[in-house]
Amino acid sequence: MADQLITLSDVANAAGVSLSTASKALNGTDRISAATREHVRVTADRLGFRHNALARSFARGRSQTIGVLTHRASNPFSRVVLATVAAELGAKEQAVLLYDARMDEQDITESVLQLRARRIDGVIVIGTGTSFPTPSLTNRFEVPVINAFTVTEDPGDVTITADDVAIGRLAATHLLAGGRRRIVHLTAEPHDLAAQRRAEGAREVLAAAGLDWATPVRFGRWREEWGEEAATEVLAAVPDVDAVFCGSDAIARGAERVIRASGRRVPDDVALIGVDNWEQLMHDQRVRRHLTTIDVGLEEIGRLVADRLLEPDLEPGIQYAVPQLVIADTA
Amino acid sequence: MADQLITLSDVANAAGVSLSTASKALNGTDRISAATREHVRVTADRLGFRHNALARSFARGRSQTIGVLTHRASNPFSRVVLATVAAELGAKEQAVLLYDARMDEQDITESVLQLRARRIDGVIVIGTGTSFPTPSLTNRFEVPVINAFTVTEDPGDVTITADDVAIGRLAATHLLAGGRRRIVHLTAEPHDLAAQRRAEGAREVLAAAGLDWATPVRFGRWREEWGEEAATEVLAAVPDVDAVFCGSDAIARGAERVIRASGRRVPDDVALIGVDNWEQLMHDQRVRRHLTTIDVGLEEIGRLVADRLLEPDLEPGIQYAVPQLVIADTA
Repeated sequence: MADQLITLSDVANAAGVSLSTASKALNGTDRISAATREHVRVTADRLGFRHNALARSFARGRSQTIGVLTHRASNPFSRVVLATVAAELGAKEQAVLLYDARMDEQDITESVLQLRARRIDGVIVIGTGTSFPTPSLTNRFEVPVINAFTVTEDPGDVTITADDVAIGRLAATHLLAGGRRRIVHLTAEPHDLAAQRRAEGAREVLAAAGLDWATPVRFGRWREEWGEEAATEVLAAVPDVDAVFCGSDAIARGAERVIRASGRRVPDDVALIGVDNWEQLMHDQRVRRHLTTIDVGLEEIGRLVADRLLEPDLEPGIQYAVPQLVIADTA
Repeated sequence: MADQLITLSDVANAAGVSLSTASKALNGTDRISAATREHVRVTADRLGFRHNALARSFARGRSQTIGVLTHRASNPFSRVVLATVAAELGAKEQAVLLYDARMDEQDITESVLQLRARRIDGVIVIGTGTSFPTPSLTNRFEVPVINAFTVTEDPGDVTITADDVAIGRLAATHLLAGGRRRIVHLTAEPHDLAAQRRAEGAREVLAAAGLDWATPVRFGRWREEWGEEAATEVLAAVPDVDAVFCGSDAIARGAERVIRASGRRVPDDVALIGVDNWEQLMHDQRVRRHLTTIDVGLEEIGRLVADRLLEPDLEPGIQYAVPQLVIADTA
């Protein structure tokens, strides 16, 4: 059986003080003696009293609720950020009101009104990645707004996201450390910002070592099939290639099939590294890791967002999660 | 720029009615003429007025917030249910207050008090699967409680979960339809309820076709390594095996490696089917499907939970999501 909800009156009766004194002791809104305050607090704890959080938030005009806007909550990457944000905010007694796929202009206007009416304490916009800038929503709200795992069109926004340049640097550094010198890069569309920046980061590291790509970067699509196609091209162009950096794990999966089919060994002849760490998604299901990859830091993004949103002063600008190298069989 | 929040007074002024009339028109709490009601509503819409949801929920003693308890929010399967629940509830203007990993007795007692103080409208408990029963939390709350993707110790609970018997039936039915007759089954621990029920469901279908397993079920662990070990055993025991039903995709991944290494073709010589549909997790990343599998219905569980929680009468008992066959290369 659920027991009765303990009220402030119950606490006052049990402590032998007036309702007003009990309220003051627990809210710290007026001067009462330290001894009385302590006595009431101990009594309240003993009874299991909790403030009626709803009444308190109403009085303060705050809801202890954060509005979360997602482009698509079912995107597997967005989902990691969302679950982390919800757990971290829950630990701070903040609820999440999620509006999914309401990002076009009419829906956003409606959502802004609804969230305001709800007196939300802040807004988190969770994107699906760093490939293309999304419109800024910061000025639509009167409460703090943080963008997560996205890039926005306004540099004055607060954004916590993946560091594509650092991802590229980390991949190239690992391949060079393994003694590789004839390195190629297969990635997505040339106008995709994530693809551009990963390529740039890797290129910087190669240049610092007096190297360049063994053949120009193959820009294509974020697809397993493109990995096959591009790997076929680069094996023909650079038969003695000794490492392939792929812009995503999906591309790497296609590339690996072609490299092995050509009779080359992975990693002995050709090292292979991807980006995304999607095997982590199955790691809990006891699937063994295979592909060496870079984790872009989705859980860290979620934690940082939840931490920073409730800070009193929110500095505008981009903050990056630190990518992590995940070493498995292929590099 | 964010515009001013529109108040009920603004609506009353713009509509040329009293505050009280405006309130009645929008809340439907008293008799006023249909024409006036319509006039006020149109005015409110034009101004973009929204009820102050916080004040409304306070007045009704409801918070439009659902408490969600997870064993581990970062479990990839729980995360699918959680993200779906949050999106579906958000569409109904219900926020989610997530308490993660607070399931031991002391934490639960604390969580129950906190959630009550928050005047939550209902509770969703998201588990990590159907392998072992978890303690019932229904009687700890005075609001509706639904269990999702779990089994509890109390049959009087409301639970929406995966249908392991139906999963087993679906796998066996598909293998029989493909003409397979010498079928084996590799799965997890013998005392694991999900493993037991998947085996039972498949066995029923074989029996109805006058068949039995080609060799006794191999019970082991939910691990890729166990798939390798068990497949090695059954290939020795039944050299002409023509189908392997694995209790999970992880087991199937290990089994496939051993089957191919033995010189047998998949699916030509040996059909292979798993359970979990973990490739769906990467499908968005443009990874091609490979393993034929059964989707246990995590998103459907999330949708059903969000729909049913707010129903006026919540019937106790177990409701199952319908598993889906996902055909790819291996069966």
